[in-house]
Amino acid sequence: MTHFDASIESLNEKLLLMASRAETAVTRAMKALVDRDEDLARSVAVDDDLIDQLEKDVDEQAVVLLSRAPLASQLRSILVAIKIAGDLERVGDEATTIARRACDLNAEPPIRPYGDLVRMSTLAASMLGASLKAFTERDPAQARTIIPRDREVDQLNKQMVRELLDQIARAPGRAPGCLNLITISKSLERVADHAKNIAEDIVYLYEGRDIRHAGGSKPAA
Amino acid sequence: MTHFDASIESLNEKLLLMASRAETAVTRAMKALVDRDEDLARSVAVDDDLIDQLEKDVDEQAVVLLSRAPLASQLRSILVAIKIAGDLERVGDEATTIARRACDLNAEPPIRPYGDLVRMSTLAASMLGASLKAFTERDPAQARTIIPRDREVDQLNKQMVRELLDQIARAPGRAPGCLNLITISKSLERVADHAKNIAEDIVYLYEGRDIRHAGGSKPAA
Repeated sequence: MTHFDASIESLNEKLLLMASRAETAVTRAMKALVDRDEDLARSVAVDDDLIDQLEKDVDEQAVVLLSRAPLASQLRSILVAIKIAGDLERVGDEATTIARRACDLNAEPPIRPYGDLVRMSTLAASMLGASLKAFTERDPAQARTIIPRDREVDQLNKQMVRELLDQIARAPGRAPGCLNLITISKSLERVADHAKNIAEDIVYLYEGRDIRHAGGSKPAA
Repeated sequence: MTHFDASIESLNEKLLLMASRAETAVTRAMKALVDRDEDLARSVAVDDDLIDQLEKDVDEQAVVLLSRAPLASQLRSILVAIKIAGDLERVGDEATTIARRACDLNAEPPIRPYGDLVRMSTLAASMLGASLKAFTERDPAQARTIIPRDREVDQLNKQMVRELLDQIARAPGRAPGCLNLITISKSLERVADHAKNIAEDIVYLYEGRDIRHAGGSKPAA
């Protein structure tokens, strides 16, 4: 391994740390919602600050590396690192949103069981985990299998919004709480979107094909 | 101007085209809402496709340029181009969301006057325009003045959500329509966020300071 490859490895390790923090932030925010745990909700903001700082570190390190990258493949790998860091930073933002809404919701009696939201969150977190696994294992085929799973989360989100709208119609006094749940559902849907973006970046990195906006779940011809 | 600088110029021109398309997409989506114009709403999807394609072009061209950039400042300028393209692509997505919700809303009697949303949209679009102006004029001081304007849009969004929740409480049958308006309001708030991101990228580009997540409206010490 050259010195340069070692620097890219160190950049990638920072990304993995970021990814695990982002996944933790989402899981904690959801646990704070389900367990009505105020302190846990507040701890998500700390996770998010660390994720923001890691993104800055990745960007800074990446800019230095870019100026020295001898090979096109290395350039691409650094670029993808920057993109993945951007997606993970946004996952941290979504976790913060979920945690804030959990605090609002915990101030009132529970509106409904959160089973469906937990299911969405588990799916989204597993997409994140799988995309980072595909990244470390340099496995674009694995990354491709993640992309269609985004649709499942989209469907769950749509179903959730429909149900919550019905609930608002039946009990308009609960509208603010229902809206908080709709926001959480959309945040989880966005977490899955970011996981999908990361998977697409990995396909681009190892296959050199830009499959964004192309119904990209099909394998390369 | 060296051949390389000319290539960066051409990349920046593509960004400006992207920016003007993104601004148009938002303006059109809002006009489709206000004028209840189905055809105009549908045309936004075409704008968005073009914006997506332009993002791919920018990324592709940027990767080629990165591998040849002789100076750190050039590297930084290419990186910032990639980041700005990413934000503009998301503005296109928000415009598509607004246009879709406009179509849903147009199928029913109007819920309320849209003056506040139009005001948000005008603010967000002017932030976008100003940030691209700061980019072409290489003016980080101008970019810094854009950042605090994001708060105004945030406030308008919060106010809008509050009012619409009240409206749902009074007329729960209109909840789906009100929720569509809440989504549009949030989309406009996100457009302003992207304009702010672009402004922060310009500060980074010309001052070399990463002011993200730092309440970055203060001038450099």
